Amino acid sequence: MRIALVAPSCPLKAEAAQGVGATAAARGDVELLVHPQCFASDGHFAGSDAVRLAALREVMADPTVDAVWFARGGYGSNRIAEAAARDLPAAARLKTYLGYSDGGFLLAALHRAGCKVAHGPMPQDVLRNGGAAAAARALDWLARRDPAALEGRLAGPALAFNLTVLSSLLGTGIEPDFAGRKLLIEELDEQHYRIDRLMFHVTGSPAVRRCAGIRLGRCYVPENDRPFGHDEEAIVRDWCGRSGLPYLGRADIGHDAANKIVPFFLGD
Amino acid sequence: MRIALVAPSCPLKAEAAQGVGATAAARGDVELLVHPQCFASDGHFAGSDAVRLAALREVMADPTVDAVWFARGGYGSNRIAEAAARDLPAAARLKTYLGYSDGGFLLAALHRAGCKVAHGPMPQDVLRNGGAAAAARALDWLARRDPAALEGRLAGPALAFNLTVLSSLLGTGIEPDFAGRKLLIEELDEQHYRIDRLMFHVTGSPAVRRCAGIRLGRCYVPENDRPFGHDEEAIVRDWCGRSGLPYLGRADIGHDAANKIVPFFLGD
Repeated sequence: MRIALVAPSCPLKAEAAQGVGATAAARGDVELLVHPQCFASDGHFAGSDAVRLAALREVMADPTVDAVWFARGGYGSNRIAEAAARDLPAAARLKTYLGYSDGGFLLAALHRAGCKVAHGPMPQDVLRNGGAAAAARALDWLARRDPAALEGRLAGPALAFNLTVLSSLLGTGIEPDFAGRKLLIEELDEQHYRIDRLMFHVTGSPAVRRCAGIRLGRCYVPENDRPFGHDEEAIVRDWCGRSGLPYLGRADIGHDAANKIVPFFLGD
Repeated sequence: MRIALVAPSCPLKAEAAQGVGATAAARGDVELLVHPQCFASDGHFAGSDAVRLAALREVMADPTVDAVWFARGGYGSNRIAEAAARDLPAAARLKTYLGYSDGGFLLAALHRAGCKVAHGPMPQDVLRNGGAAAAARALDWLARRDPAALEGRLAGPALAFNLTVLSSLLGTGIEPDFAGRKLLIEELDEQHYRIDRLMFHVTGSPAVRRCAGIRLGRCYVPENDRPFGHDEEAIVRDWCGRSGLPYLGRADIGHDAANKIVPFFLGD
């Protein structure tokens, strides 16, 4: 199993590359190809749009690469997502793509284009407290589709996104088809009033209203400027109720080492 | 000219009510009716959704009220905007509505429903440095349509929104018709990478792509976590270019005392 690492958003930290490299070497069933673009830098990004897109398209087209693992989130994959999914080489559809957070823009675009994508841990997560388990989970799933790596209550088609990323791609050219799929969401560093505003936007979308219901992953909420009066679960329940969408309970995903894997191609 | 103050988002500060009250009393051409709901509090909001909606609907239906002035922004008007604009009493269409920031959700919903709305200073702005001028400008325009209060380069139909509010209402039931209108935007307290993400979303909208072009108001940007590499004008130019929308230069609006007035009904 050959797994290519590219960074469509922000640059990978060298110690994270070393960490996942050591993990991969110790297990012996995966070979990691760390594209040098992972360490490029241009303003906010891991290289210019052209540099990031070229590295991504290079590994997507490489028939010797079995999986593409997005190095980390941050911000920027939306800037190249439509171009990444355009005129796909045949080899691009034969491999698996794994990432989350800002990488959700690419998950949406590549899923829409017929690629096998999954929401789950990224190489930079190895630096989290307990992050070795996140990296091992990702590799267990990429190398041998270990069912223990999957989000525990998956049954039938699902999509998973960071809530801000989901809100930001609605109505754009990379919006996926939500019809009949369970929609899992998680959030990081947004106050409750912002989660409420995001849920207003997301559940106000006619496209999202065709989904089979919403499950709420973990939200890491900073101190609210003003007390909001409700927690994130009450907020999501409220907007599900207002929009006629079933609220389906919690999901085992989030910006943490416990983040489980949600393939978008289950039941397809 | 009787002007009713209600707070569809967060509560008005007492000293702001006193400030605009003194301004109004000194000029003699306006009577301010400060609805007690302006000082209500429920979690993040100036009263529950029901309380805020009832106060708003009450002044909208009052035939003795000539204008409704949203007390301040914050967050929350989106939660009552669709209901506020539903089954309008005849009196609601005969008056003018003024506000901005979070009030943009109401501007969108009421404009869509055929009311005369404008983007401009709110009572709480009187507390800003130089804020007396903002309050005087708002009252000059409400009382006698003073052309000096208007954004200086308005010619033909225009819409104006806080960029985050605009992004959050796209695709929802309160999305306005952008076709042929110049779209003015401004932003507060969002890092450049977030402005970039918002512009990706906004210019990716087929509805927004029917507008006549974008003008950029003032953006108050906090310190970026990572240097972004471009300022807000370069960001807006970039996304206008990518989406085929004309970039029409700067606009004299923003979260400050100089914020000029943009009626949505010019040229209608």
